Amino acid sequence: MTPLKNDRFIRALLRQPNDRTPIWMMRQAGRYLPEYHATREKAGGFMDLCKNAELACEVTLQPLRRYDLDAAILFSDILTIPDAMGLGLSFTPGEGPVFQRTVQNEADINQLYNIDPNQELQYVMNAVSTIRKTLDNEVPLIGFAGSPWTLATYMVEGASSKKGFPKAQKMCDTRPDLMHMLLDKLVIAVTNYLNAQVEAGAQTLMIFDTWGGLLTPEAYIEFSQNKMTDIVRNLHREKDQQKIPVILFTKGGARNLNGFIDSGADGIGLDWTVKMSDVKALVGNKLALQGNLNPNVLLSTPEVIETEVAKVLASYGNVKVNQGHVFNLGHGITPDTPPENVAALVEAVQRQSTQYHTK
Amino acid sequence: MTPLKNDRFIRALLRQPNDRTPIWMMRQAGRYLPEYHATREKAGGFMDLCKNAELACEVTLQPLRRYDLDAAILFSDILTIPDAMGLGLSFTPGEGPVFQRTVQNEADINQLYNIDPNQELQYVMNAVSTIRKTLDNEVPLIGFAGSPWTLATYMVEGASSKKGFPKAQKMCDTRPDLMHMLLDKLVIAVTNYLNAQVEAGAQTLMIFDTWGGLLTPEAYIEFSQNKMTDIVRNLHREKDQQKIPVILFTKGGARNLNGFIDSGADGIGLDWTVKMSDVKALVGNKLALQGNLNPNVLLSTPEVIETEVAKVLASYGNVKVNQGHVFNLGHGITPDTPPENVAALVEAVQRQSTQYHTK
Repeated sequence: MTPLKNDRFIRALLRQPNDRTPIWMMRQAGRYLPEYHATREKAGGFMDLCKNAELACEVTLQPLRRYDLDAAILFSDILTIPDAMGLGLSFTPGEGPVFQRTVQNEADINQLYNIDPNQELQYVMNAVSTIRKTLDNEVPLIGFAGSPWTLATYMVEGASSKKGFPKAQKMCDTRPDLMHMLLDKLVIAVTNYLNAQVEAGAQTLMIFDTWGGLLTPEAYIEFSQNKMTDIVRNLHREKDQQKIPVILFTKGGARNLNGFIDSGADGIGLDWTVKMSDVKALVGNKLALQGNLNPNVLLSTPEVIETEVAKVLASYGNVKVNQGHVFNLGHGITPDTPPENVAALVEAVQRQSTQYHTK
Repeated sequence: MTPLKNDRFIRALLRQPNDRTPIWMMRQAGRYLPEYHATREKAGGFMDLCKNAELACEVTLQPLRRYDLDAAILFSDILTIPDAMGLGLSFTPGEGPVFQRTVQNEADINQLYNIDPNQELQYVMNAVSTIRKTLDNEVPLIGFAGSPWTLATYMVEGASSKKGFPKAQKMCDTRPDLMHMLLDKLVIAVTNYLNAQVEAGAQTLMIFDTWGGLLTPEAYIEFSQNKMTDIVRNLHREKDQQKIPVILFTKGGARNLNGFIDSGADGIGLDWTVKMSDVKALVGNKLALQGNLNPNVLLSTPEVIETEVAKVLASYGNVKVNQGHVFNLGHGITPDTPPENVAALVEAVQRQSTQYHTK
C-alpha cells in the first residue's frame, strides 16, 4: 500500500513523535461552508446527501480544499444505524432527527433488523471507498459511529429532546434488562459497521457518545462506557499492515478516565469544560488527547483565536515520549462560523504548535 | 421572633446536628401538580402569576400541603431582574422566555435601569412577605435569584437557545470589558434584590447558575463564580438574630470547589453527573451539600425511587460534626412527574436518612 503523505494525525493517536500538532475539526464538512449548501441543494434532503457516494465524497473533501487539515472525516450521520434497523429516520427542518417508530419494549427490540453493513448500509461503504480513493493518501480518513447509549436514547425517545432523554433514562431505572438488551444489539451493529468501514478504507475510527454526559457516574459506566469498550475490543485494529487507531468521545464525559485506558482506545476527545492539563496529568501517557477548544471561539476574531489556540496548546504542553495531542474543537463547528476564522485557526495551530514538539 | 417549628433545613446548611436529612425539591411548586395548573389558569399568564402575591403564595404552598417538605421556595422566575431592567420579558408557549430588547453594546448596558427592588420588583417582595406570613414559621422560606452570568446569557441572546449561548460567549471572547460591565451591573441588582427578599422575610437565599457549566474552567471562574462571590460577600447574612444561609448552584459546575468555600456560601447544589462522595471528600467539612438525585428518577416507580434515594444518602454517608446534607434533585422536577412518586421520595428520604444522623 502507498503510505500516507501526511500521517501526523495517525502518529499523534499512536503517541509517536511529530513535527507539529495535527488538526481537524468535528463537523468540518458542514453548514458553515457555502459550497456545502450548494452540494446539499443538489442532493435533495440530508439523507439523500449521505446516500449519494459522489456527493458525500464531495462535501467530505470541501474543507480540505480550503484548509490544510490533517484528516478527513466521512460525511454521514450517527443515525444511519437505527434507520437501517428499521425505525424510519427523517430530518425535519428546525426539529432535527425524527423516527417513525420507537423502541419501548422487548418486542420492539426483537423486531430490529440484524443489519449487514455491506447490505443495508452499503451506501456508507460506497462513500468511504470513494472518499478514500479520491483522497489519494494525502491525509487519513476517519470513519465513525454513534455510541450504543447515544443511539439508544434516540431510538427510545424517537427524537432529540430539549429536556434530555427521560424515556431512555426511565428504561435504565425501571427495565435495565431491556436497556442492556437494546445496547448489546447496538454493540454488535456498531462493531460490524465500523469494521466494514475499515474494510472499505477508513484509517481511524471514532465513536461519538453525545449523551453519555447526561448519566450519573455509575450509570455512565454501566450503560455507555462499558458498551464502547465492548466495541473497541472487537474492532479490527490493523489493515494493510497499518494500525487503525480508535478515538472515544463522550461529550461532558471526562469521567472514569481509567475506564478509557482499559477500553483499549488510543485516544479520547474532550469538550471545553475540563482542563486539558488536568486530564493529561491523569492519562496523558496512555491515551492521546483530542479537542478542548470551545467551538464558539470561532465566532470571534483571528486575534482571539490566536490567544485561545495558545491556551489549549499550553494546557497540553510539551508532547513528550508516549504522548499524543490532536487539535480539535470540543464539539462540532457551528453553522454560523465565518470560514475565514477557520483559516486563522488552522494557521495558528500549525505555526504555534511546533515549539511543543522535539522531532 | 417566633422560632421555626421545623428548622432542619437551616440546621443542615449551617452544618449543625439534625435528626434526619431535610428535603425539598427544585421547582417543587410547578407544573407536575394539577392544582398548580388550576391556579395558573386563574392568574392568566406565567408572569401574571408571579406578579399576584396571593396566587404566588398559593402555588408556593401547594406542594407543602401534599408532602412533608422541610422548606418552601418563593414562586417566581430568575428573569424578573432583566425584565425590571427594561428588556421586556414575555413567555411564549413551547418557546420559553423571550426578551423584546437585548444587550449588544455599551449603550444597551447604560440604558438598563438601576432597579430598586422595593419599587420595580415590589410584587416579588409582596409575594415573599405574604408567603412568609402564611407559612406561620412551619418551615423556612427560600428566596432566590439567577446568577449574573445566567441572567447575562439571556439578556445578550434574547431567548434560550438549543445550542448554548454563542452571542454571550462571543462577548466574553471579544469584549470581556463589556461583559464585565454587564455582569457587575447585575451583581449590584442581584445583591439588592436578595437583600430585599431577606427584609421581606426570606430565611435562606439561593443563587441559580443554570449556564455556568457551559464555560471553560477559566471562564467559569472569571465570568460566573467570581460574580457570585461578589454577591455573597455583600448579602445581609443575619435577620432577627437568625443567620441567613446562602446556597450556590451551578448546573454542570462542580468545578473549582475551593472557590465555593472562599465565596462565603454555606452550601452548594450538585447535579447528578458527579459523585456526592467525591465532592464531600473535598469540601464536605466546609460546605453543606444539596441535590444530586436525577429528576428523571421520579418518572420511574416507588421501588426504584427507594433504591436511588438509598444511593444518594449512602454517597453522602454519615453526617458528622461540621457536615450538612440537604436532599434535593440535581435539577428542577419535570412536569410529567407523577405526584405520587414525590410522596414516595419524601417518605423514603425521611425514613432512610435517620440512620446517618447521630443526634
